[in-house]
Amino acid sequence: MSEKAKTKMPEAGTARETSRRRFLTGSLAAAGAGVATGMAAARPAAAAGESVITEVQDWNRYLGEGVVSQPYGTPSQYEANVVRRDVEWLTASRQSSVSFTPLHELDGIITPNGLCFERHHGGIAEIEPWQHRLMLHGLVDTPLVFTMQDLMRFPRENHVYFLECAANSGMEWRGAQLNGCQYTHGMVHCVAYTGVKLKHLLAEAGLKTAAKWLLVEGADAAAMTRSIPLEKALDDCLVAFKMNGEALRPEQGYPLRLVVPGWEGNMWIKWLRRIEVGDQPWQQREETSKYTDLLANGKARRFTWTMDVKSVITSPSPQAPIRHGRGKAVISGLAWSGNGRIKRVDVSIDGGRNWTTARLDGPSLTKALHRFYLDVDWDGAELLLQSRAIDEAGFVQPTKNELRAARGENSIYHNNGIQTWYVKADGTVENVEVS
Amino acid sequence: MSEKAKTKMPEAGTARETSRRRFLTGSLAAAGAGVATGMAAARPAAAAGESVITEVQDWNRYLGEGVVSQPYGTPSQYEANVVRRDVEWLTASRQSSVSFTPLHELDGIITPNGLCFERHHGGIAEIEPWQHRLMLHGLVDTPLVFTMQDLMRFPRENHVYFLECAANSGMEWRGAQLNGCQYTHGMVHCVAYTGVKLKHLLAEAGLKTAAKWLLVEGADAAAMTRSIPLEKALDDCLVAFKMNGEALRPEQGYPLRLVVPGWEGNMWIKWLRRIEVGDQPWQQREETSKYTDLLANGKARRFTWTMDVKSVITSPSPQAPIRHGRGKAVISGLAWSGNGRIKRVDVSIDGGRNWTTARLDGPSLTKALHRFYLDVDWDGAELLLQSRAIDEAGFVQPTKNELRAARGENSIYHNNGIQTWYVKADGTVENVEVS
Repeated sequence: MSEKAKTKMPEAGTARETSRRRFLTGSLAAAGAGVATGMAAARPAAAAGESVITEVQDWNRYLGEGVVSQPYGTPSQYEANVVRRDVEWLTASRQSSVSFTPLHELDGIITPNGLCFERHHGGIAEIEPWQHRLMLHGLVDTPLVFTMQDLMRFPRENHVYFLECAANSGMEWRGAQLNGCQYTHGMVHCVAYTGVKLKHLLAEAGLKTAAKWLLVEGADAAAMTRSIPLEKALDDCLVAFKMNGEALRPEQGYPLRLVVPGWEGNMWIKWLRRIEVGDQPWQQREETSKYTDLLANGKARRFTWTMDVKSVITSPSPQAPIRHGRGKAVISGLAWSGNGRIKRVDVSIDGGRNWTTARLDGPSLTKALHRFYLDVDWDGAELLLQSRAIDEAGFVQPTKNELRAARGENSIYHNNGIQTWYVKADGTVENVEVS
Repeated sequence: MSEKAKTKMPEAGTARETSRRRFLTGSLAAAGAGVATGMAAARPAAAAGESVITEVQDWNRYLGEGVVSQPYGTPSQYEANVVRRDVEWLTASRQSSVSFTPLHELDGIITPNGLCFERHHGGIAEIEPWQHRLMLHGLVDTPLVFTMQDLMRFPRENHVYFLECAANSGMEWRGAQLNGCQYTHGMVHCVAYTGVKLKHLLAEAGLKTAAKWLLVEGADAAAMTRSIPLEKALDDCLVAFKMNGEALRPEQGYPLRLVVPGWEGNMWIKWLRRIEVGDQPWQQREETSKYTDLLANGKARRFTWTMDVKSVITSPSPQAPIRHGRGKAVISGLAWSGNGRIKRVDVSIDGGRNWTTARLDGPSLTKALHRFYLDVDWDGAELLLQSRAIDEAGFVQPTKNELRAARGENSIYHNNGIQTWYVKADGTVENVEVS
């Protein structure tokens, strides 16, 4: 028997229009419901005969590569498109820029270390771990300096947490409509951290009664510094040295970073070298002129640390169009909240008029990404896809326009507004807004 | 101020003695308890002044590397020692060999994809994903052939599972005493899989009433094939295409593998290309002459699929000696069971005479690795370290001698016996047996 048909996967949709296209949800609703939710009865393409072949492949005619050709393994050559990407015009230099997680290519809740978004203010510090020290001083009984080995002697914990940059989706506030969730939402990742609770180190030094705030400082060229209230430090902050089982990656703070669960990524100081205990916040650059939210009246919200409840559909999305035509399809996305666990995610196909509850995949961990799915049967009609997350504290993800009404149009940070994807009849997808 | 002291981390202990050294537990017990368990009051080295420096480092004099210098990131140059390793004399060729996970260097429960142990029987098949097909035939109503894209249209799930080779610790059965847990226990890894429940594919094809067994076949040069009972296939088997969020690695079956939770790794067919439904097992080579357990009376146990409850201390261990001297120390290890969750792990410092319950770190997921810790204060006395796991089904990890008494000395597979590490006063560690 010979192989009857070989199908080649098309390249991802390359539509790059970034004009600010607004849709009236009414116009789409007239087209009728695009999908029927639930387990569709329709068979996938193979069953329908679209891509059936009558013979299995013969990959096994050839002896493959042996073991340990790669002592540290890398992805398949056919996954070369699954990479972090940056936006060149975004910042003046690459040492103060950002590269985005390819959310549209990933599944589940764990981000592989090689694909975790990175944002630096003075480039990646290169640190020899046996030379690194963490100094703890200020309003303490005994100032201490820890080697990495010292830290390994304290009780260790492991936790899966998301890390989101406060500026994630920031360009969408004024309607940039970047072409894909890698760019609109890719300043988030989620890994398993191994570390020592910060409270153990503070207890070792002994806090003076006036202690109320910490200054945490990185060893990068920016000497990144932020103030953290003592309550948070004594609650769930970790001094972490491993991510997803192995040492932190250089761009994630090797050999030591602060983990501040649920709070904005800028506070998760990388290359952590100093913790000073004080009685008031330090009013550093990154908590005054930056990482504050300028309102329409000229006043700024500050100390807006918690990352609010948020979600995004990762597939279909502009970089991950529907390639298989009508019939069974999986709508998939991510939800997260700095307040704890995600309680529910709703999906709309008509720009927010009607909502269907999605299936939340486990495990559901506090302050971690949650994966959701909606299994549908697509009739080929255009869709205005949205997702809306609700967290265990009861917060509901708002629309972008609700955010603009509350905070004006100056904001950059803390945009947790609902994202809309316009799915066309040919399966390609665009970033749009509904009004 | 100038830096007062720089400490350099010593290289890992390089003791390579592999002689079969047996210890009487009585001889050590006479030396008295080596550690006091629980949160020790003693301060780490830094607090005791052993490695205190009076100035923070100046890494930040230099602007670091910018973003996306690596679109797919890699570990720090200082972690070059954290790699998979093989044992050259173990097999005739590298295409039928094994490389081991460096368990002693890892923490938490997630294994990074680049460090997952690999074992092949005909090398790594190289498969273009858009060419790959999965054929499902035999006792079904409608034979089907699925493309990768077809599979993406079925409801997806994510689960964290350990995968252990049936031969893990096999060389220890007759007392090889390999020098480190990478070699004694490194044929195990644990990742988050994304895939489709096999039962959905079987339902799509429709099972005939006589259906009782599946033959699953890989596309590697060995055409690896195993029989799987239908009950297991309909329970929790996954047809998986992602691990830890990204595509399967080539050496783990890219683009498709079978996940058989809790069962021996050889059944987790990689490069999965064919599933045949039948009414009896196929008696393939890998379930008759291999992956069966030859008993002393000449009979063999077969279909011994479930990986029994097991644990190992990963630090300290021969490749991860105690470098910091006396005082606070963290004993850490892994436990797992094919029967479900781990209920408890006990640790002994005197070769199994006395046991202390370790701290189980979360999350506790069924058929996944579990991380345990015991925080101790080491007085520098010699230790005979052991760990003993108990699973939720009530199974207790046996000693190696209990296993030998039950199954004779011919066995290779399914060695879940208790491992002993001999910790010397200088902190170096050897693989020993107690009798």
